[in-house]
Amino acid sequence: MNNHNHPQSKQVINRLSRAIGHLESIKKMAEEGRDCSELLNQISAVISALNGASKVIIEDHINHCVVEAAKVDDKKVVNDLVDAINKYIGIHIKNNDSIH
Amino acid sequence: MNNHNHPQSKQVINRLSRAIGHLESIKKMAEEGRDCSELLNQISAVISALNGASKVIIEDHINHCVVEAAKVDDKKVVNDLVDAINKYIGIHIKNNDSIH
Repeated sequence: MNNHNHPQSKQVINRLSRAIGHLESIKKMAEEGRDCSELLNQISAVISALNGASKVIIEDHINHCVVEAAKVDDKKVVNDLVDAINKYIGIHIKNNDSIH
Repeated sequence: MNNHNHPQSKQVINRLSRAIGHLESIKKMAEEGRDCSELLNQISAVISALNGASKVIIEDHINHCVVEAAKVDDKKVVNDLVDAINKYIGIHIKNNDSIH
């Protein structure tokens, strides 16, 4: 557990809560046998919401944790962020390839 | 509500259930102030899981609903799928642009 300064953490938690509620309604739609295209649209909306939450996390992290870590030359924080962003971008590249 | 033939619908429901459980644990991590990079890694994993569920939905839909619709010249089903896939791909392109 870290006590980093995350001014937007409440916003991240709210976005995650909304994504959970949205996914629960999509699960119900799937159980009711709703139209595939409709399901796909709703899942796209949740992915978009999770990307929005990720963007807020990255912004908060760079503006606060990374800036503070850089001041004390803490390379682990910077390296962890680079690894996490690589994983995040990697997923998107992989998905775009699999669609085309 | 549709009564389409979706052989993999149980798999889709299971994947959605797991994504909900995973997101609930990520929300708890955010509430505990866990490291930003760790949160980002976990959100990436959920996005990857939702992309996996979307892939199964698209496969099922093309192999069953769309093939059946094409036989009776039902253009709405085909158009709805194209719209849904456009929206799905659009999200990914937008996100990749926003990262670079």
